[in-house]
Amino acid sequence: MVQKTNTPTSADVARLAGVSRATVSYVLNNTHAVRISEPTRRRVHEAARELGYVPHAAARSLRAGHSRTVLMPAPAIPAGPLHSAFLSEVQGALGRLDYTVVQYGSVGLEGDEAARAWAELRPVAVLVPGAGCGPRGVAILKRSGARAVVTLGPERVEGAHALLMDHDAVGRCAATHLYERGRRRIGVVVPAEGALDTCSRPRLAGARQALHGTGATVSEVPLAYTERSAVRLAARWPGLDAVFAYNDEYAMLLMRALQDEGLRIPEDVAVIGADDLMLGRLLRPRLSTVRIELPSGRYLAALVDRLVRETGGEPEVHRVLGVSVVHRDST
Amino acid sequence: MVQKTNTPTSADVARLAGVSRATVSYVLNNTHAVRISEPTRRRVHEAARELGYVPHAAARSLRAGHSRTVLMPAPAIPAGPLHSAFLSEVQGALGRLDYTVVQYGSVGLEGDEAARAWAELRPVAVLVPGAGCGPRGVAILKRSGARAVVTLGPERVEGAHALLMDHDAVGRCAATHLYERGRRRIGVVVPAEGALDTCSRPRLAGARQALHGTGATVSEVPLAYTERSAVRLAARWPGLDAVFAYNDEYAMLLMRALQDEGLRIPEDVAVIGADDLMLGRLLRPRLSTVRIELPSGRYLAALVDRLVRETGGEPEVHRVLGVSVVHRDST
Repeated sequence: MVQKTNTPTSADVARLAGVSRATVSYVLNNTHAVRISEPTRRRVHEAARELGYVPHAAARSLRAGHSRTVLMPAPAIPAGPLHSAFLSEVQGALGRLDYTVVQYGSVGLEGDEAARAWAELRPVAVLVPGAGCGPRGVAILKRSGARAVVTLGPERVEGAHALLMDHDAVGRCAATHLYERGRRRIGVVVPAEGALDTCSRPRLAGARQALHGTGATVSEVPLAYTERSAVRLAARWPGLDAVFAYNDEYAMLLMRALQDEGLRIPEDVAVIGADDLMLGRLLRPRLSTVRIELPSGRYLAALVDRLVRETGGEPEVHRVLGVSVVHRDST
Repeated sequence: MVQKTNTPTSADVARLAGVSRATVSYVLNNTHAVRISEPTRRRVHEAARELGYVPHAAARSLRAGHSRTVLMPAPAIPAGPLHSAFLSEVQGALGRLDYTVVQYGSVGLEGDEAARAWAELRPVAVLVPGAGCGPRGVAILKRSGARAVVTLGPERVEGAHALLMDHDAVGRCAATHLYERGRRRIGVVVPAEGALDTCSRPRLAGARQALHGTGATVSEVPLAYTERSAVRLAARWPGLDAVFAYNDEYAMLLMRALQDEGLRIPEDVAVIGADDLMLGRLLRPRLSTVRIELPSGRYLAALVDRLVRETGGEPEVHRVLGVSVVHRDST
């Protein structure tokens, strides 16, 4: 069934360049263990270019026993601009360390099924966002040759390294700010969109924790990302004098509904979001927000590279979320 | 250097299930050409599960001469929510047709370099967004075994099938609406962010085309996605009585700056965006917008599947963008 009659092979490249197939392989796979002169390298590259030959990643990874592939399962929920920019940065930085970054969709796959599908690609490292992988999934990936499995999310997973995105800190930061602004009946929006639970639950817990024992109350405020849900919430506003609205987009939605209901921001209700999006600066009153800083792509790429090379160590935990309040006019 | 001592192999599975390695391969690769009884299939699956064996995608694709991998190079610019949802849908639909969808970052790669990197993964089909690939890139991909190269964007690329995202139609739609609302001095925002040129240039051209010969003027309005740029533009507003602001986010930015400058929307300047984001309904006045509809993931997946199977035909062109005006209060 192999029918790639037009496809140039490494044998064709070797013939044109006047070298052995092994030499072609060393040059095109960037193997520096073998000394090959610059002119020979150049000849091989020129022949490959002329023929339009590209090495076969699959064959290469079979030969090597492992790949240079780093797998980043694509998030199932549409990622925000912050997260997208972070992922691009990580990809670029891993690319510069000579890894191939492949994003893999997990749509329609659940639990261990996803890990098994990822394992089929025999990645040398896997970055798993959110709650994408349990302890059994981690074990499957390691058994199939992954040298480093790194989770990025609010919780640790047994057997994996963790970049802990400590969303508690976001909630603590927002609640403390509202308390310092004199507010005592504080709501925390928990989106009805369940996919956000892994972030929103720890944010609520962090707010509760920050104000524990102060006499201020912290209430859970359910809100779906629809105008209808916001209008209904505003119409029966439970007398809270401040709200941490999960993020800037939910804050915009809620602030509009509260204003339409005749409530004054911040006099009647102080509102704070998170993410520091441009839209927050365009709202009136200008939206206060929690700025969230992710680690640099370079930092994460260097960490992954080290974990791949130092395989066998204990799982490491790194806390990576920086938070700070940007105080504007809505609080 | 192969050192995966713990990794279970298909031979281990065969031993535990009491069948040949060929049978294991047929069952786990879903080959239906060979008749294998249900109990045997079940035994193989159970043995594989017990041992934690996962087939090796690379080995499988080498055996088959091609893979079931569809490559979707991840967009270099952060994708909007509309685009993200579309990509997820396509992934899901291709997965249900038994393809493996892999997103590949093109960060730091340019022109043919990107195509060469993609070709290394020996995809059976490649979906290329935007201007990610030229005619030479298409040829490289086809030579390395891709049976279908499909571009998604505003322009055709020689040798590739095209899902034409006809952004002219977005501009035509917006300009016609503004004209029908009685406006005659119409601006079209062209974002200073160059990555958006492939969409914004055709939108401007479409607006010009729609109003050609009507006596209305269409002017290019450069705007960067920063408050500073918007404030500066509004301060020296060139007397236009309407503006198509590229999309809803630029529209929000510009509308805020015009309002702060004392211009009334829509009395002095009518503003229309595009994308029909929720935020447009939250603005005051409520933002008019061009709703853009992408094809369903199922449609695109079925098309890719057909192109893979009917290899050898002429490049096909499908126009896939649906547009309609959502008229609210800003125009």
